[in-house]
Amino acid sequence: MASIVAVVGATGAVGEEMVQVLHDRKFPLSKLVLLASERSAGKKIQTAFGEMEVELFSVEAAQACDFVLMAVSGDFSKEFSPQIIANGKTVVIDNSSAFRYDEDIPLVVPEVNPAAMRGKLLIANPNCTTAIAAMALWPLHQKFTLRKVIMSTYQAASGAGAAGMIELEAGTRKGLNNEPVVNEVFAHPLPFNVIPHIDAFQSNGYTKEEMKVVWETQKIFGSKDIACSCTCVRIPTKRAHSEAITIETVEDITAEQAMEVLRNAPGVEVVDNPAEKLYPMPMTATRKYDVEVGRIRPSLVFQPKGLDLFVCGDQLLRGAALNAVLIAEAKLAEA
Amino acid sequence: MASIVAVVGATGAVGEEMVQVLHDRKFPLSKLVLLASERSAGKKIQTAFGEMEVELFSVEAAQACDFVLMAVSGDFSKEFSPQIIANGKTVVIDNSSAFRYDEDIPLVVPEVNPAAMRGKLLIANPNCTTAIAAMALWPLHQKFTLRKVIMSTYQAASGAGAAGMIELEAGTRKGLNNEPVVNEVFAHPLPFNVIPHIDAFQSNGYTKEEMKVVWETQKIFGSKDIACSCTCVRIPTKRAHSEAITIETVEDITAEQAMEVLRNAPGVEVVDNPAEKLYPMPMTATRKYDVEVGRIRPSLVFQPKGLDLFVCGDQLLRGAALNAVLIAEAKLAEA
Repeated sequence: MASIVAVVGATGAVGEEMVQVLHDRKFPLSKLVLLASERSAGKKIQTAFGEMEVELFSVEAAQACDFVLMAVSGDFSKEFSPQIIANGKTVVIDNSSAFRYDEDIPLVVPEVNPAAMRGKLLIANPNCTTAIAAMALWPLHQKFTLRKVIMSTYQAASGAGAAGMIELEAGTRKGLNNEPVVNEVFAHPLPFNVIPHIDAFQSNGYTKEEMKVVWETQKIFGSKDIACSCTCVRIPTKRAHSEAITIETVEDITAEQAMEVLRNAPGVEVVDNPAEKLYPMPMTATRKYDVEVGRIRPSLVFQPKGLDLFVCGDQLLRGAALNAVLIAEAKLAEA
Repeated sequence: MASIVAVVGATGAVGEEMVQVLHDRKFPLSKLVLLASERSAGKKIQTAFGEMEVELFSVEAAQACDFVLMAVSGDFSKEFSPQIIANGKTVVIDNSSAFRYDEDIPLVVPEVNPAAMRGKLLIANPNCTTAIAAMALWPLHQKFTLRKVIMSTYQAASGAGAAGMIELEAGTRKGLNNEPVVNEVFAHPLPFNVIPHIDAFQSNGYTKEEMKVVWETQKIFGSKDIACSCTCVRIPTKRAHSEAITIETVEDITAEQAMEVLRNAPGVEVVDNPAEKLYPMPMTATRKYDVEVGRIRPSLVFQPKGLDLFVCGDQLLRGAALNAVLIAEAKLAEA
């Protein structure tokens, strides 16, 4: 049951991770193809599979594959993903936001709503912040039913791609030497700063990144009844997003009950031992498949029907590449 | 009406700022005395008033002053502050948490509860995180009555004193060169990391820093009816704390109404123009007296009786030195 898989946008931060995850998870490949636009085609890049040449993307090249993992812009995906699946067999897993809000397109976290993608060829991968939160929130929702979710994020520079990470590192060097820090990727200099602005502002005062969390959580969980509000903030970390989350639940909930549920949840690692200074952190969550969940305690505002928790996950893995590969694995199992 | 003022702990991060603020605000001084323990006594330090020698602290030396600004440990203050005010005239303004929760000791943000300190000689300065939030929350509370406050913080390294800032800078240099990062001030390496742990853990799962926000907000606002929950997080910034705050109010509230109220609030600068990429940030709030408030928008969870906002304030100024000097100014006016 080995498959031909293409990664489109393999030279970007997410594409690179997709190749790595395919390798590390021993995805049953008969062939791996790296595709990109003219700008990157012909480049030779180092991958976990050795040196590979990036080939020019075409619909035909993509249609020759069983799976196409799209790590490209929304505009590119919008144009080409429907053309690729028109062959009636190639599965496209799209990491952009192009199709996430289309009613007919499933938006999937495999541990949460695998049934949504049954029989579908085009599947949307959620926003990284949403996917990370979903790992902790879904098991709690199943058991205690979420009523409200209030979230503040601590998002890493690499959420804006490899260029974001480079800008942070270069800027930090300059900042340490009291030289002026240039910003092109971010709205303001990020080193030693905090920027409460990710993606475009919407008419309701929220950014698109913030609304993605609202829209996508409701869609993935299949419930418009979860009231959700979010503040998304870029901070000077390299990788892994953190999230401070307060929930109100329909059922009574204790920290011990929540911990029990989360310990048995797939894709979750409970890291919660204050006495040993153990709690989720980018330092420990980086390059980890599981999302770290800790600081689990009764909400002082909603108790006994509420909880505060802190979550940290690698946004390039759980928030992108790993989630996409897990979708492909689930589709394989379905076939 | 010029006064003799002592700063105790003048060589620390907060003490240094106190001297600067006394200078910048032209506090009517007849004499400024810098006091410290044996370790620092005799040192000559550069101040806004020129080079000054630090003198050895004694109760007698402190009692010779009209105002004593304490920027020392809680233990030190606990021992000596009551002794100093025993003369019945010297006003002690204490920046530690030693007396904040004593019923008889006023805990004061001058713009919020100046009446609480009338006739009192020992006055507690609030925790920095609380003081910054109070500037935005008090005007809203007066007009719309707060019911719930849910807060996540983004706290700078210098919140742990000058040593915290030095550890962040030195560690960042090492981190950039892929050398191991040492941590002594912080529980874990802070450079490019996030640490959801400030001050000691309490039995309810919250840290003391988080509970300070709860206890102190209720005390300063004079209302036990405000339910408050907080997640305090250290991030790799140098100075100025940011706070993502969600409130539920008793009265209906709109972003426009809140903005109008905050524009007229003392000590607040509304920085809220997304189209121009203007919102509160450490980069702009550092060394500013006013607390920046922005990202003001209806809470998607509580509307029409709720708001989300983002606040950023210099914790060494509003959260410590400035607040202490403002208390002294208010006491002067009272006399």
